[in-house]
Amino acid sequence: MACTPKREEGLPRAIARVEEAARSGARVICLPELFRYPYFCQREDAAWFDLAEPVPGPTTEAIAKVARQKHVVVIAPIFERRAPGLYHNSAVVVDATGEMAGLYRKMHIPDDPGYYEKFYFTPGDLGFRAMQTRVGRIGALICWDQWYPEAARLTALQGASVLFYPTAIGWHPDEKTAQGAVQLDAWRTVQRGHAIANGTYVAVVNRVGYERPPETGQGQGQGIDFWGSSFLCDPQGVVLAEARPDKEEILLAEVDLERIEEVRRNWPFLRDRRIDAYDGIAQRFLEKEPWRDQ
Amino acid sequence: MACTPKREEGLPRAIARVEEAARSGARVICLPELFRYPYFCQREDAAWFDLAEPVPGPTTEAIAKVARQKHVVVIAPIFERRAPGLYHNSAVVVDATGEMAGLYRKMHIPDDPGYYEKFYFTPGDLGFRAMQTRVGRIGALICWDQWYPEAARLTALQGASVLFYPTAIGWHPDEKTAQGAVQLDAWRTVQRGHAIANGTYVAVVNRVGYERPPETGQGQGQGIDFWGSSFLCDPQGVVLAEARPDKEEILLAEVDLERIEEVRRNWPFLRDRRIDAYDGIAQRFLEKEPWRDQ
Repeated sequence: MACTPKREEGLPRAIARVEEAARSGARVICLPELFRYPYFCQREDAAWFDLAEPVPGPTTEAIAKVARQKHVVVIAPIFERRAPGLYHNSAVVVDATGEMAGLYRKMHIPDDPGYYEKFYFTPGDLGFRAMQTRVGRIGALICWDQWYPEAARLTALQGASVLFYPTAIGWHPDEKTAQGAVQLDAWRTVQRGHAIANGTYVAVVNRVGYERPPETGQGQGQGIDFWGSSFLCDPQGVVLAEARPDKEEILLAEVDLERIEEVRRNWPFLRDRRIDAYDGIAQRFLEKEPWRDQ
Repeated sequence: MACTPKREEGLPRAIARVEEAARSGARVICLPELFRYPYFCQREDAAWFDLAEPVPGPTTEAIAKVARQKHVVVIAPIFERRAPGLYHNSAVVVDATGEMAGLYRKMHIPDDPGYYEKFYFTPGDLGFRAMQTRVGRIGALICWDQWYPEAARLTALQGASVLFYPTAIGWHPDEKTAQGAVQLDAWRTVQRGHAIANGTYVAVVNRVGYERPPETGQGQGQGIDFWGSSFLCDPQGVVLAEARPDKEEILLAEVDLERIEEVRRNWPFLRDRRIDAYDGIAQRFLEKEPWRDQ
């Protein structure tokens, strides 16, 4: 989706897309990160906290209604207001009954020029999670999480067959010519790598379109050219469907749970994990040489 | 390298290649996994344990000599005999002085038709490790390790600027037509993903050539067509140099330590790791739903 600058339009436009996807045969539908709004994190301005809402709240209610009506599972990102001064970048997974299957609160929060998310979002405290839905167990992660193998692994270990990544990422216009292709390919590659390493499908849902920075607030940046390129890849990292970088699109593709079984039998990575030797993962950095201590 | 079936030829051929690489300007040189021998793990036969040798031993001595003479760092895979009945698939990192910078014992051991490594190799007990050398800190991992994000992460957290993966991987001839391209691309992709996620260079060194199974021993397989395609990629996953799938080749490329600094400043993934939430990584699987326990 492109995300509209008109605040009141984001939700009805998304609902219309969900209905259209359902008509096209989708059974699980993922919306992009913070889909209701322009990417306000381009500047730091406390006024934007007005947009946040509780869970459950207006967005989850509207999503639950369409999910129930159309018998589809929906992953709906939310700007979550948990308490005054405590906000999260979240995603609800709504089951095809309209009931909430689970809530995920973005764990890894970026802060880079134009992406001032540490100002807005408290890091999630629910951990990584797969949710049981009518279409099976699926995982919800959000944007910056996509660069972290730990997030993919911990979600896959809970039995997720698909890792969904609602996303808002794009090019700084002044970097696009020189670095744009490499940045996009790195983003695609690291996520295809998660699919391969974990034997899961990976579905990435990004916004499209250029968004200028908000007029108020602090921050650098000449706006962001969101690079779209949403995709679904299989457990060997094969891209089954890929959207364009610059146009709205309903990207529809099939997940074959038998394929997960087949790939994991032949590439049994889960069998051989050295869980006795991974403790250091929970450290920030490992400067000393363990072999010198022995 | 292609690996010769004549036992006495593997080491001198490798030494000649190290000398040639050094003449071409290489400062750190990596040989493929078990480079001295044909890939005997295609069958299970205890007679092959005769090939194993201690560390230090004949191979490390020969490598140390050429490293000292040519002033190069060498990563040399070894079939290590540690005690009777206790063998490892190892790699020594020999510094440009000829001194041993470190020993790595392959941590993740495969066992698949044609790759019966669990019969031969005890899983490593030294953990994942970066070694200090004249060219900086580098990490040695081996083949099957390349599918595990944990291995790359734990080596990178020790300050490795390059992750080296000596490897012996190829196609089953009867799968090559249907699945060969996807398998090779998955292998390349997951390792490029490690480079991206960790902000390190990744150097993968594979053997080439078809090897028929040994005449003795138990096991399935019609031989292996080792797929070569050794490569070096940068911290954004950009492939800087790539060898052919079917020919011996000295692949020479440059590692720019400033590039690591630059990429990590702009993509600060290490800054935002959620080390408070990664404990589950050391579990085999996570069946229950943590949010139901709260």
